[in-house]
Amino acid sequence: MDYRKGSIGRVFAVRVDHGEDVLSELSGLAIKENIKSAFFIMLGAMGSADLVTGPKEKVVPPKIVWSKFDDVREIIGAGNIFWENGTPKIHLHGAAGSSKGMTMGCIRKAAQAFMVVEVFIVEMEIAVKRIYDENIGFSPMTFE
Amino acid sequence: MDYRKGSIGRVFAVRVDHGEDVLSELSGLAIKENIKSAFFIMLGAMGSADLVTGPKEKVVPPKIVWSKFDDVREIIGAGNIFWENGTPKIHLHGAAGSSKGMTMGCIRKAAQAFMVVEVFIVEMEIAVKRIYDENIGFSPMTFE
Amino acid sequence: MDYRKGSIGRVFAVRVDHGEDVLSELSGLAIKENIKSAFFIMLGAMGSADLVTGPKEKVVPPKIVWSKFDDVREIIGAGNIFWENGTPKIHLHGAAGSSKGMTMGCIRKAAQAFMVVEVFIVEMEIAVKRIYDENIGFSPMTFE
Repeated sequence: MDYRKGSIGRVFAVRVDHGEDVLSELSGLAIKENIKSAFFIMLGAMGSADLVTGPKEKVVPPKIVWSKFDDVREIIGAGNIFWENGTPKIHLHGAAGSSKGMTMGCIRKAAQAFMVVEVFIVEMEIAVKRIYDENIGFSPMTFE
Repeated sequence: MDYRKGSIGRVFAVRVDHGEDVLSELSGLAIKENIKSAFFIMLGAMGSADLVTGPKEKVVPPKIVWSKFDDVREIIGAGNIFWENGTPKIHLHGAAGSSKGMTMGCIRKAAQAFMVVEVFIVEMEIAVKRIYDENIGFSPMTFE
Repeated sequence: MDYRKGSIGRVFAVRVDHGEDVLSELSGLAIKENIKSAFFIMLGAMGSADLVTGPKEKVVPPKIVWSKFDDVREIIGAGNIFWENGTPKIHLHGAAGSSKGMTMGCIRKAAQAFMVVEVFIVEMEIAVKRIYDENIGFSPMTFE
């Protein structure tokens, strides 16, 4: 375990509109507003998303399983914004359900807002970067 | 996409007790404490709720599907408080599950606390109102 | 319903690493940093957890149902840290899913991080303790 403490910076109230790509809107906002370190919560609906729903087996590095939906799902999500190699990375986990079923996982692509997605971003005065580690196959939060 | 940035105001730690209506307790608190703009997270259990579990079809404006439960479910929720026409509106998405199954969606009525529901509200110094838009059939967060 | 208001204190960005026990890491952090009152959000994956998935019947005090998983699940969680009898208590609700299924509830034991669990803790300047109430069978947030 590792951690850092700090104080809270700015807060952002964000409305992602129908048909927009949630992840690219958040990345664009992070660049425009220079958000380097933040967590967020999310609620709304999505008309599609590609998400990782766990590994095939319980081994590290994992072979991940991709899932997707393109019907409409209600969403609840939690995530964060840190940068890797000069680019903002959005890490978003969400549960996505409707009367037809539920799924959840790490939402990574094609996350299209249906009607609206509302996001509340809390900036942290804590220096964090994502640095790729080939042994484990991902880019953990790394503290300076 | 639209957004505003600001600073954080007050924070509220709220315990909703057994049998109380979660949504009306939050609305009452918003009036009493004049909370005009906030997001929150929620955990606890509910003995009932009426919730919207997506639209019937992928069209705008959507015809929504209502679901309900009246057994006891563990809850995780995320939401916000903004006002519309002089009244606080609680927008709450939650996942609700037990050993008997899971559902999730937009919790809108009859959300009765079982044992306890704990809510942590973060006020934002950002001016937001909900204004109804008949073309899309809901009231988006609207910035001044 | 009861509540208190206050201001926000420190914020913590926490990375719980592969194989570590998420709940004991958070308890240890609460002791080390003297975190007496806080809420948090969580995202990541767990290789196991024991969780309470509601009561057997809709009665108070409830007889709780224990569930568990030991395959890998993607996680979204919300929780808080308050103290009871001089010890930090982590209250964590989470939804845990993979391509093989979903569960959710109150995660209480054996919550082992798989790859990583990321936690963002917001300290509140609000005095809260958990005090056990034998009539209801749990320890509600109690305000001074």
